[in-house]
Amino acid sequence: MTQPTDRTRLRRTHERGSYDKADIHAILDATSQCAVGYVIDGKPYVTPTLHWREGNHVYWHGSSASRAIRASKGVEVCLTVQILDGYVLARSGFHHSANYRAVMIFGTAEEVTDPAEKEARLNRFIDGLWPGRSAGLRPAQAQELKATTLLRLEITEASAKVRRGGPVDDEADYALPIWAGVVPVRQVIDAPEADPRNQEGVALPARGIGFEQER
Amino acid sequence: MTQPTDRTRLRRTHERGSYDKADIHAILDATSQCAVGYVIDGKPYVTPTLHWREGNHVYWHGSSASRAIRASKGVEVCLTVQILDGYVLARSGFHHSANYRAVMIFGTAEEVTDPAEKEARLNRFIDGLWPGRSAGLRPAQAQELKATTLLRLEITEASAKVRRGGPVDDEADYALPIWAGVVPVRQVIDAPEADPRNQEGVALPARGIGFEQER
Repeated sequence: MTQPTDRTRLRRTHERGSYDKADIHAILDATSQCAVGYVIDGKPYVTPTLHWREGNHVYWHGSSASRAIRASKGVEVCLTVQILDGYVLARSGFHHSANYRAVMIFGTAEEVTDPAEKEARLNRFIDGLWPGRSAGLRPAQAQELKATTLLRLEITEASAKVRRGGPVDDEADYALPIWAGVVPVRQVIDAPEADPRNQEGVALPARGIGFEQER
Repeated sequence: MTQPTDRTRLRRTHERGSYDKADIHAILDATSQCAVGYVIDGKPYVTPTLHWREGNHVYWHGSSASRAIRASKGVEVCLTVQILDGYVLARSGFHHSANYRAVMIFGTAEEVTDPAEKEARLNRFIDGLWPGRSAGLRPAQAQELKATTLLRLEITEASAKVRRGGPVDDEADYALPIWAGVVPVRQVIDAPEADPRNQEGVALPARGIGFEQER
């Protein structure tokens, strides 16, 4: 369980919120898409990227030359995940809503600098999505690891927020002849597109986590 | 065409970038999911929400009591959209990548306060997703409009960034017996779940924009 702070305490619709690490971890594992917020000269920036989780840390990486990466290392960031699960259609505009799973994490983005540690964590990112894949790849070169910055954030100041279920309308509105309900959305995988330069007989990797939405 | 600024100029992989309004609009229209970044006491916050576009403005809304909404109105925000189109698997970890379409918009979030204007814009949000739906709904009440804050951002300081296509490997690595290619992902819609309290014979609304990924 994380401790709610002034930043993570859910003030509105708090029945949708959770500070439970299992809930937070499950949402982080269900998608690789996140948005990282940081501040440059007092102004907000949000960079979309991919993340993965190991234990109680969330990791992301980027080019060491990237402004987003340089501006977010060693400083306060806010990492947010949003999974849209459906549109909630009600009998009034006001009660339209969305079903979703979201996580917000606050903290200082810490750079992982040890090359062996970096390589292990980056391999774990690939293996999370494609189990066992990293062992078969051409090994990382020292300059590739140098050109890559790996950042992580401990999941201590964090909260989850989830909305599930159908519309909740004003009682009188249930008599209206309006279609109400949920239109679910989810992410799916299409047929893989093999590189035309693949060697003969190579096999498509199996899928790992991060594809949870394909239910 | 928007003018690149210090914040929107793409420094790396700039061949993936565009300042063309048509490109930016098309990505904003292809999803309703976005993340809004703002600053409180010098620290970054990112709130996931839904947006829509009308002309050269992007709109979003929330409860007037929401901290995220109160903290972002009238101040500098960064609104980001990220659509993940696929995982790009290469023959080295370093050249793994993702196909995506992204937009970043910077500016001051302007509150729309006129009730009639608010109602028209909020109806447009619903009608964008479900054409014609708003006209059949129970009309908005004054206190509902008051409880809703509508924000907008002009699309002037903005950029798009898109990656498409297969992996680009080091020339020597093409000889390796490793599966490489693209694993496409997209968002789809599942069978709608009607509210059990629906009146008999009500019809499911037709779908509008924002579902472009269902190709």
